Amino acid sequence: MPERPSEDDLIARYFAPLAAPEGLGLRDDAALLRPAAGADLVLTKDALVAGVHFFADDPPAAIARKALRVNLSDLAAKGATPLGFLLALALPGDWSAPWLAAFAAGLGEDARTYACPLFGGDTVMTPGPLTISITALGQVERGRFAPRDGARPGDCIYVSGAIGDAAIGLRLRLGQAAALSREHADYLADRYLLPQPRQGLAPAVRQFAHGAMDVSDGFVGDLAKMLRVSGVTAEIDLGRVPLSDAAQAAIGLDRALFEIAVTGGDDYEILACVPAERGGAFEAAARAAGVAVTRVGVAQRGDAPPKFIGRDGVEVVFARAAFSHF
Amino acid sequence: MPERPSEDDLIARYFAPLAAPEGLGLRDDAALLRPAAGADLVLTKDALVAGVHFFADDPPAAIARKALRVNLSDLAAKGATPLGFLLALALPGDWSAPWLAAFAAGLGEDARTYACPLFGGDTVMTPGPLTISITALGQVERGRFAPRDGARPGDCIYVSGAIGDAAIGLRLRLGQAAALSREHADYLADRYLLPQPRQGLAPAVRQFAHGAMDVSDGFVGDLAKMLRVSGVTAEIDLGRVPLSDAAQAAIGLDRALFEIAVTGGDDYEILACVPAERGGAFEAAARAAGVAVTRVGVAQRGDAPPKFIGRDGVEVVFARAAFSHF
Repeated sequence: MPERPSEDDLIARYFAPLAAPEGLGLRDDAALLRPAAGADLVLTKDALVAGVHFFADDPPAAIARKALRVNLSDLAAKGATPLGFLLALALPGDWSAPWLAAFAAGLGEDARTYACPLFGGDTVMTPGPLTISITALGQVERGRFAPRDGARPGDCIYVSGAIGDAAIGLRLRLGQAAALSREHADYLADRYLLPQPRQGLAPAVRQFAHGAMDVSDGFVGDLAKMLRVSGVTAEIDLGRVPLSDAAQAAIGLDRALFEIAVTGGDDYEILACVPAERGGAFEAAARAAGVAVTRVGVAQRGDAPPKFIGRDGVEVVFARAAFSHF
Repeated sequence: MPERPSEDDLIARYFAPLAAPEGLGLRDDAALLRPAAGADLVLTKDALVAGVHFFADDPPAAIARKALRVNLSDLAAKGATPLGFLLALALPGDWSAPWLAAFAAGLGEDARTYACPLFGGDTVMTPGPLTISITALGQVERGRFAPRDGARPGDCIYVSGAIGDAAIGLRLRLGQAAALSREHADYLADRYLLPQPRQGLAPAVRQFAHGAMDVSDGFVGDLAKMLRVSGVTAEIDLGRVPLSDAAQAAIGLDRALFEIAVTGGDDYEILACVPAERGGAFEAAARAAGVAVTRVGVAQRGDAPPKFIGRDGVEVVFARAAFSHF
């Protein structure tokens, strides 16, 4: 292979091994998918730019896995099972074969883990930073898609996992909160580097939730967004927002990190609004799937923004409700 | 609206008006598509980078339309009817509201023209050049997809439209071939700026072609690629390669432009391999659709690269068979 392979060489070498039959060996300009009878297709697309959504010197496997996982998080929040993905990769001029091999290996590992193989895509050169756009496809049984705007008055509002780890992890990466134990610091840094899409929760979401979304731009802002588009409101007890031991330790050292935790981005947890009478069944299904869920409030009639109530019973007004990469 | 709107503001203002029902008002993280019974889905994804695939100062509407049209060209070459598309847009810091309004207007115009509405996507900021990645979805009747590797010995090899206009147009844009008439120069420049996907030919392709692909990286290289993956070869009479009046005029002024024409990129024409006994029916269907097609050769048994024969009957060996943006 020449030092600077052609696009076709590069695809054949690094990406064809990740392709599903639908990808036609990545030798066509298109992929061919025969949809399952009785299924709806769910499509999501996220773009990530070096220096904006990840650090250019992050390990290439982690960059690839994050790019796929942020899309898998969207599919999980809609109750969808992954089918496959298309990748557009804009490579800067200084890419190297070892870098690309590691990127493809990370991508392939997650494609297998999440049963979400490569269907196709495009590889181009850019004078700018590494830019990755993934379109992921999933499916749900007909009519089982969990929309963002589906929350109804009386629904219990659940959130999966723990909130704020990635936002605190990013602060650590930027050199702040240095007094934390190595174990906690590593945990939080890893939660920023590598999202954990809650794929295990997807069946419970599609079975029980009226509405759902993934938390990617901050718990406070995303929850407000979901309630607003659903035409409901809520009082949220901030004391119930689930925090990891590591996040609690970090907040113990610097109380300002609590606001970072609940408004910062990159959680990739799931917010789900479940009718009260099905809350127990949802919790049981989540437990069986090994995904923690916490009830943080109840949706109510009204179009006011949600109120966030602190431990002292006083409403907390956030200066900046949502994180934005934009 | 503030001078620097949020991503949600921007989506609501510029892109939500282009959305199909499947796009859920662009207020969800995903699109929801109910596939038609008996249809196969065709997926294609192309990325375009300013300064690589188009000029950063091209009219924003033309940039948007080109980004969509290069994907529509892939769908047409597979015999597919467009369903919709997802857009990932990485905007440089200096984007302006008028620029984005014009971009969205151009995109919307083509979305209507080609009945290919917006399903969703992602908008991010980049410190690099404008980068656009579109994933287009189409459908074909089950089993009617025209694969690249479907050419068989004895198939007539057809190409649509005219070859080389865009490559010569790009040379004009770069200041070469200046002696051409204004009319011809404008025609060629426009063919570079704005591809004409041969959507009208898609029904004939899916009905009659064993195999097909769009010509995006040069006629000579793409034809060689299609024949190679199909396991066939051919002798191509270069005198039969269709050229527009403008391209012929340009080549008349500078014979070196002929090689540019047949090896340069951005034609977005269709190569189709049609069994000989169906050639007449294919030609009639193309004529009825208003798309010119020209038979340039016949596929033969063999795995040698195709031979390209010049007007003097001597084989032409190209120094550089294919154009690559890569």
